[in-house]
Amino acid sequence: MRATMLYGPGDVRYESVPEPEILQPTDAIIRLSATCICGSDLWPYRGLQEISAPQAMGHEYCGIVEAVGSAVTRVKPGQFVVGSFCISDNTCPHCRFGFQSSCENREFMTGAQAPLARVPLADGTLVATDDIPDDDLVPGLLAASDVLGTGWYAADAARVRPGSTVVVVGDGAVGLMAVLAAQQRGAERIIAMSRHPKRQALAQAFGATDIVSERGEKGIARIREMTGGVGADSVLECVGTAESMAQALNCCRPGGSIGYVGVPHGVEFDGQQLFFHQKNMLGGPAPVRRFLPDLMELVLSRKIDPGKVFDLELPIADVAEGYRAMDERRAIKTLLRV
Amino acid sequence: MRATMLYGPGDVRYESVPEPEILQPTDAIIRLSATCICGSDLWPYRGLQEISAPQAMGHEYCGIVEAVGSAVTRVKPGQFVVGSFCISDNTCPHCRFGFQSSCENREFMTGAQAPLARVPLADGTLVATDDIPDDDLVPGLLAASDVLGTGWYAADAARVRPGSTVVVVGDGAVGLMAVLAAQQRGAERIIAMSRHPKRQALAQAFGATDIVSERGEKGIARIREMTGGVGADSVLECVGTAESMAQALNCCRPGGSIGYVGVPHGVEFDGQQLFFHQKNMLGGPAPVRRFLPDLMELVLSRKIDPGKVFDLELPIADVAEGYRAMDERRAIKTLLRV
Repeated sequence: MRATMLYGPGDVRYESVPEPEILQPTDAIIRLSATCICGSDLWPYRGLQEISAPQAMGHEYCGIVEAVGSAVTRVKPGQFVVGSFCISDNTCPHCRFGFQSSCENREFMTGAQAPLARVPLADGTLVATDDIPDDDLVPGLLAASDVLGTGWYAADAARVRPGSTVVVVGDGAVGLMAVLAAQQRGAERIIAMSRHPKRQALAQAFGATDIVSERGEKGIARIREMTGGVGADSVLECVGTAESMAQALNCCRPGGSIGYVGVPHGVEFDGQQLFFHQKNMLGGPAPVRRFLPDLMELVLSRKIDPGKVFDLELPIADVAEGYRAMDERRAIKTLLRV
Repeated sequence: MRATMLYGPGDVRYESVPEPEILQPTDAIIRLSATCICGSDLWPYRGLQEISAPQAMGHEYCGIVEAVGSAVTRVKPGQFVVGSFCISDNTCPHCRFGFQSSCENREFMTGAQAPLARVPLADGTLVATDDIPDDDLVPGLLAASDVLGTGWYAADAARVRPGSTVVVVGDGAVGLMAVLAAQQRGAERIIAMSRHPKRQALAQAFGATDIVSERGEKGIARIREMTGGVGADSVLECVGTAESMAQALNCCRPGGSIGYVGVPHGVEFDGQQLFFHQKNMLGGPAPVRRFLPDLMELVLSRKIDPGKVFDLELPIADVAEGYRAMDERRAIKTLLRV
């Protein structure tokens, strides 16, 4: 088969590789219904994160189980499944505590930008639907695998509750999903920080009540003004730069909460500054597995449509163009048809 | 009158100063029943924090109201009161949110190591008892002003709940009060990290179920072993050094919570490391005013005896010896009789 490999900065190739095989009795092989490109794939694509090239790309996936190892009991061939980008056994103490993304046996999914992929720890990682879902639901279910689950975790970590005033920093796909998550969790006011008309419109479609296009000091001043000088109850940081983190810290009220899900790059905190900020902070890779059954149900029952976050759809053979479009911010998120 | 002034590192003097006066209509003057020396007073005493010398010392206090300004309505002369080391109006949005230590009109109390002290924003800061308490309760009530309230906040920030496994980093007075707070909040297991027999004994008296005397990597390994490799649900960081913070981060389970109340000195966090640690973190000066009525009730009803944390009692004229004893770790905490 052919699969997506990253050879170095800007060098994505869709090329022949061996088909994945069951390597462990806990593995499953799935035939992908669709896959996609993640904002985090752009870090190595841009040369901002070292890789051991060539690297098999892709960690967001849903599809039909093709084969399972001898120890797999909870999913079977022919079922439609969605899995988290974090592979977890879902039985260790960290998993049972709801932090499957810190599983004692955690792995990160790879090789999912391909027609077939191997999923380790299939029983702990995959969630099957009762029936094969309608095709138009596939993008939404695919989103649950990472981008929706990550936005959801941002809202959970930032303790968004009914009536909350929420600021979402970042208008990438995760930020947009964070808006949706805040809306679903009953936030009263959701302020999306975005300068791009298309993303602003999508944020509003997902439930943003206000848009702030200013950034930096001006953005902070605008949020303070909008919240009567108080700051937001919850801030969802969905970028991971020093600038976005400063924005988050300064838009949040004392005693408020920041959920940060953009993997920090070049972010340093001074302990004493953080102390006097007096804000709850929780970050990390999202424990998507905790939320997955609920998120899939929301999609299957058509209560939410996170699939709208994909604004570019390409055949997987054109994956390189998908990376370019996201790198150049021509696309928010690229869905790849396999 | 005479009062405690810090002239520079190691130079504490009890010397003549003008009596405090009502400067604002919201002020009160109180006659202290007792006062004490805080661990944080040692930072400038040791030259680790710059001061504008000479500086009036002391921020923990309780006593009888001597006079009030024309705008004060909630306390009156003759009442016994306890106040927080953080002066707050208790009406602004941050106060109403329970974070009086980030009050829009926050000041930090000074000049309380003296027979008389001025308390700004008296209505928001002071809590009066119904009657004049028995003399033996004064140390406990004095503790509520800062050290007990700060330990309590550590447990609150670290979300200690019934059944929790808790690690307390630091065996100073705040750490010991954090043990007591964890015990009162129903923690099942309370592991106090301490190498000093006298402090270990006091930690056990306050409710510690286990003592770990190892530090650094060995201390972390010991906690992991004791928690089945998982880590603690809650860690209460009561020191504020890079070493103690590393201890806290590595003793806490993923998804667990760290309340840090030792003012950080020389602590830096790498954003990406913090992200992958995946721990809830909340620090800051304690919003003692939020807890004060409950803490005072616990002391007045003799359900807790935080006054045991004072292991040295001196007449206030000997305040310099009180500082020396704490600096040399001969005393945990010095009570000053006025």
